[in-house]
Amino acid sequence: MSAEQAATFVKPGMTVAMSGFTGAGYPKAVPGALAKLIGDEHDAGRDFKINVLTGASTAPELDGVLAKAEGMNLRLPYMSDPELRRRINEGNMEYMDIHLSHVAQHAWFGFYGKIDLAIVEVVGVTAEGDLIPSSSVGNNKTWLEMADKVIIEVNSQQSAAMDGMHDVYYGTALPPHRKPIDLTTVRDRIGQKYLNVDVNKIVAVVETDAPDRLSPFAPVDATSEKIADHLLGFLDYEIRAGRLSEKLLPLQSGVGNIANAVLAGLARGGYKGLTAYTEVIQDGMLQLIKDGTIEFASATSFSLSEAGIAEFNKNVDHYRDRILLRAQEISNHPEIIRRLGCIALNGMIEADIYGNVNSTNVLGSHVMNGIGGSGDFARNGYLSVFMSPSTAKDGKISGIVPFASHVDHTEHDTMILITEQGLADLRGLSPKQRAQMIIDNCAHPDYRPLLQDYFDRARKESYGKHTPHLLGEALSWHERFRTTGDMRPAQ
Amino acid sequence: MSAEQAATFVKPGMTVAMSGFTGAGYPKAVPGALAKLIGDEHDAGRDFKINVLTGASTAPELDGVLAKAEGMNLRLPYMSDPELRRRINEGNMEYMDIHLSHVAQHAWFGFYGKIDLAIVEVVGVTAEGDLIPSSSVGNNKTWLEMADKVIIEVNSQQSAAMDGMHDVYYGTALPPHRKPIDLTTVRDRIGQKYLNVDVNKIVAVVETDAPDRLSPFAPVDATSEKIADHLLGFLDYEIRAGRLSEKLLPLQSGVGNIANAVLAGLARGGYKGLTAYTEVIQDGMLQLIKDGTIEFASATSFSLSEAGIAEFNKNVDHYRDRILLRAQEISNHPEIIRRLGCIALNGMIEADIYGNVNSTNVLGSHVMNGIGGSGDFARNGYLSVFMSPSTAKDGKISGIVPFASHVDHTEHDTMILITEQGLADLRGLSPKQRAQMIIDNCAHPDYRPLLQDYFDRARKESYGKHTPHLLGEALSWHERFRTTGDMRPAQ
Repeated sequence: MSAEQAATFVKPGMTVAMSGFTGAGYPKAVPGALAKLIGDEHDAGRDFKINVLTGASTAPELDGVLAKAEGMNLRLPYMSDPELRRRINEGNMEYMDIHLSHVAQHAWFGFYGKIDLAIVEVVGVTAEGDLIPSSSVGNNKTWLEMADKVIIEVNSQQSAAMDGMHDVYYGTALPPHRKPIDLTTVRDRIGQKYLNVDVNKIVAVVETDAPDRLSPFAPVDATSEKIADHLLGFLDYEIRAGRLSEKLLPLQSGVGNIANAVLAGLARGGYKGLTAYTEVIQDGMLQLIKDGTIEFASATSFSLSEAGIAEFNKNVDHYRDRILLRAQEISNHPEIIRRLGCIALNGMIEADIYGNVNSTNVLGSHVMNGIGGSGDFARNGYLSVFMSPSTAKDGKISGIVPFASHVDHTEHDTMILITEQGLADLRGLSPKQRAQMIIDNCAHPDYRPLLQDYFDRARKESYGKHTPHLLGEALSWHERFRTTGDMRPAQ
Repeated sequence: MSAEQAATFVKPGMTVAMSGFTGAGYPKAVPGALAKLIGDEHDAGRDFKINVLTGASTAPELDGVLAKAEGMNLRLPYMSDPELRRRINEGNMEYMDIHLSHVAQHAWFGFYGKIDLAIVEVVGVTAEGDLIPSSSVGNNKTWLEMADKVIIEVNSQQSAAMDGMHDVYYGTALPPHRKPIDLTTVRDRIGQKYLNVDVNKIVAVVETDAPDRLSPFAPVDATSEKIADHLLGFLDYEIRAGRLSEKLLPLQSGVGNIANAVLAGLARGGYKGLTAYTEVIQDGMLQLIKDGTIEFASATSFSLSEAGIAEFNKNVDHYRDRILLRAQEISNHPEIIRRLGCIALNGMIEADIYGNVNSTNVLGSHVMNGIGGSGDFARNGYLSVFMSPSTAKDGKISGIVPFASHVDHTEHDTMILITEQGLADLRGLSPKQRAQMIIDNCAHPDYRPLLQDYFDRARKESYGKHTPHLLGEALSWHERFRTTGDMRPAQ
């Protein structure tokens, strides 16, 4: 069936669940046809908006075109498309940011209402009628189970060699019927290779031949190298202290350039035989698998550059034995993350002097991408590490602030903060001890005296001295940036 | 041995782990003798401070006397003693607030350093040399395992009838050796009745005969009755919608007067055969067990009034078959809470218009008690409910504010907010939708127009319109309260 014909199954007001996780495995044809349809309806003066659920972010061919068409009422749970981001931050549509481990279960609980239609990209269909998953699993199992109708996109450009790399767990249930999940190492296969689908639900099969988003990565720069070096130094310290073995514990790594660069830096650590239990296989992790630093990685998605795809295809037999892709409710499950004792490595927008971390909202209000899985891993991991350059915008914004303008990870969930300036080990410290360590170790020299001044005065003047704050000044840095374009006071 | 002799095993700088959880099962004699010893040393001009770890809060005989003696350097993870709270908020000692599920594992991970001494109250010692746990289990298993030396307090006033009501799980391990925890219903016994102890570690056994803190509860007032009614209405709505069965799902209830009153209110719901998987059995829950509303409760501690103790002792055979006390790493374990799908009912200090909840710090700086287990349950439960009167201090403080002055539970972890004004169901809503619902349903009429005004102006003037905020005004209500004694502007 053509994408245009398939798109006609979408009606105004529907909740449509699509495949896709960090620019991989999203449908590539039907969303575009749907955007055209919506545009035509709008031109004819008729309302046409839908709610769109995915695994995580997708690409211009999905989020971009639907955003441009003003075709979405509500979008969840994660996004990174510039057009979509702009509309959300202009206040023209609703966006709901959710821990990635929560999405499937909250859908099952009925918290997002009925799912009318699923649009899922696959590599192919087996002789038995099962679906061979594509470059991400995400919430596809849940969408196929819950949706009233299903549209399948079979993408011939997705590598058929991925067949067999998926582990789709069908053992979930709703409370009170849940059982322990029998996964005790990153290698464990607990599910099946293929996605089940009720063929009676399938209303369209569309053939496509198009690549994933093929995220390019920024080259590793001096700042991210310094961050990686601080992390390596810390991991070595933990090994010497006997708290970690030389194989560490399973690594989780957030999405993006800093995460990718820090992973690449791990190659310098001389480790062998590490494991990863994470969400995304980026180029940096592929490299670590290739050189033996990581011997096995579990994730829910690939997110590779064009060079990464080429490398994967060239050595697919090597990678097939060393990678499993699971549903995101399993890749991010608190039960598994706590059991395995993951080392959670995530980026951030800013942290305050007490270790509260803002992962999502610039100046407390403009959402960047969403929380993703950072909260699943930071709360439940063995270690929770947050990393960021100490400044942004040529020094005009400090990554360490008096008071986080949005809190995604509280002081209770932050153990290690790293900037290119240094590392703050917050374990076992009270708030005031944490503040001094963060100011001394992580703040940029331009901001360090300002932070120290705030903290010193807060210790004198604050109502309570447990977490000293000057309420009238708490967000003044952000306010100053809004008015002067620089968090630093005028000279 | 006398408490005074036993106390001499404590040396300056030691980390001492004590039993006790919400005023139950804490040592009653040695801390007092230790406080005397510390006072004498201070009088002689010598430093003497220790680090004190417990399960949760204790009582004046422990936290109170050690605080008065200026005997603590660092205290964790939860506290409620007025003397201790005062010193923390005066900035005279360090306090670290931690999710209760994290304490034992972080201790095992080595994040709090070596544990020199454990002081643990028990009901008695078995013929085999095992310890019969007292009215709380808390972290006692961990303290007994980790400490170099052990002091036992055998309290003859603790009911011997509690023998058999404990389930101490010894299946935990450190990553990468952890296994699934085989608990699938609140009734499941997965451990043993008694605490193991290496007798070679025991340096003192002290006999005591003293009651637990015997927390009195505030009488149920009109405000808490209204909050309970809103909760009952919501639960009925969920049952009618088919999202909950008439047996609901296991209840968790936070500690304190509001939680106690709301639980008591559940008796009006006409439920039968409910279950609880929670931290504390307060009077309200005992009553629900007595009348059959709750047929089984799992917790880590009792926290009863004098009348509650009398009721428990009178009908102990009834309660023994319906209550299990577990280690807090199990009662609060994310794996179990998510599996069982708990309904998390917790109090709060304030929430902001986007659903960020402050559980701990008045005016962002003065810690009340600590986060306790609220985060363990709110993040991992089936439902997360936060409850509070809409105002405090005779209306001078609003429980709903523009910006939470401290965030313990983020917008991602809050599903339902309840005040006596009404209930806001935030599931499936974007930030701006949440804000309007919270203002409309939960804010006090004195503050509703002020909140609406803030929100309306923020939607116009905010940098980003995803989570609109006026940074220069965000904490102005708290600042106004500090300067004028009232969050409302002068008339």
